[in-house]
Amino acid sequence: VSFEEDVLAKNALLAERNRGWFAGRRILALNLMSSPGSGKTTLLERTIRDIGQDVAVSVIEGDQETLLDAERIRATQCRVVQINTGSGCHLDAEMLAAGVRSLDPPPESVLMIENVGNLVCPSLFDLGERARVVIMSVTEGADKPLKYPHMFRSADLMIVNKTDLLPYVDFDVERCVELARRVNPEIEVLQLSATRGDGLDGWYDWLRAQQRQTV
Amino acid sequence: VSFEEDVLAKNALLAERNRGWFAGRRILALNLMSSPGSGKTTLLERTIRDIGQDVAVSVIEGDQETLLDAERIRATQCRVVQINTGSGCHLDAEMLAAGVRSLDPPPESVLMIENVGNLVCPSLFDLGERARVVIMSVTEGADKPLKYPHMFRSADLMIVNKTDLLPYVDFDVERCVELARRVNPEIEVLQLSATRGDGLDGWYDWLRAQQRQTV
Repeated sequence: VSFEEDVLAKNALLAERNRGWFAGRRILALNLMSSPGSGKTTLLERTIRDIGQDVAVSVIEGDQETLLDAERIRATQCRVVQINTGSGCHLDAEMLAAGVRSLDPPPESVLMIENVGNLVCPSLFDLGERARVVIMSVTEGADKPLKYPHMFRSADLMIVNKTDLLPYVDFDVERCVELARRVNPEIEVLQLSATRGDGLDGWYDWLRAQQRQTV
Repeated sequence: VSFEEDVLAKNALLAERNRGWFAGRRILALNLMSSPGSGKTTLLERTIRDIGQDVAVSVIEGDQETLLDAERIRATQCRVVQINTGSGCHLDAEMLAAGVRSLDPPPESVLMIENVGNLVCPSLFDLGERARVVIMSVTEGADKPLKYPHMFRSADLMIVNKTDLLPYVDFDVERCVELARRVNPEIEVLQLSATRGDGLDGWYDWLRAQQRQTV
């Protein structure tokens, strides 16, 4: 336990330094977290294509291995850096600082940090982000906020993704939102389908509101 | 790193003790791992209802919090123990030993261990199981074996679940199998839909074959 405390205390310091760096450049840094396969990368691709003309977006991709996600983002002409964690299960503030040095995001831009697909460990590690977004897919079941409460407690926004699949799965959106609010009464909620484009206006409004508070 | 090595070395010893205990009782212990929401619990419910008359099955459920999964399993009249890991991201051999003491599974039975929903950390921790089963849903995307190679490399069987959703998602089963075999040429593969019941015969055949080698 004391080893874990040491690791987290060291991480907290580096995260504050990242936070200061982002503030100095008026960069909006968002930490996107979810299970594997909930649609983070697809949401980012769509977001960059839809609003990338108006908002400078760059991306840091976290994965155990492969450059697959970075290649998908690069195809949108967006600046992107891939961090491979090897056997590691999360990004930490030190990895993020290295990624940011390499990416060099411009002032007043939006930095999307796609964490390793994992509903558990990433929630423990502050990266210096302004806000945390947890994405869940309607295929995952409505009980996830109770079963992974640390993640949902630490998130500012929950995105319920893949709403186009609602007719084919047993998923009660209202119950999921109620359970998320039970662990985190402050959490904001958006429903959308990144592949079909439903509900994206709400996400873009949320992003612009966050950016206004940053710049 | 040396702390991680110490933890894993201690875990390896306890896992071997678990393995010996299972062998002494001729118990088939299976470690089921996946992302959150891939359908592990639904597959167990269905399995117990379908073959629980012929095969004595008991279950250890791992989750950060809640008794939800244990309650679902208990509703099938199956013996079950829930382990809550708190902020922990995986089961380890010591937790499993405690769960087994409490569960007291009968000789020549099948013990299903449902790990914490996480494609990363559980793969590092041997529990003393006979075989590892990784379950992925067709909604998660075919690239997961490459992005989480430690999990797929360590698995004996990959179950591709939720095949009933194939008409509604962009998922190439053949490519997913090819990528899984690229990281693990020995991996066996089954496709099924636990909710609709498609492909379950293959799973029950696999279970019976494993059990014949144990008893």
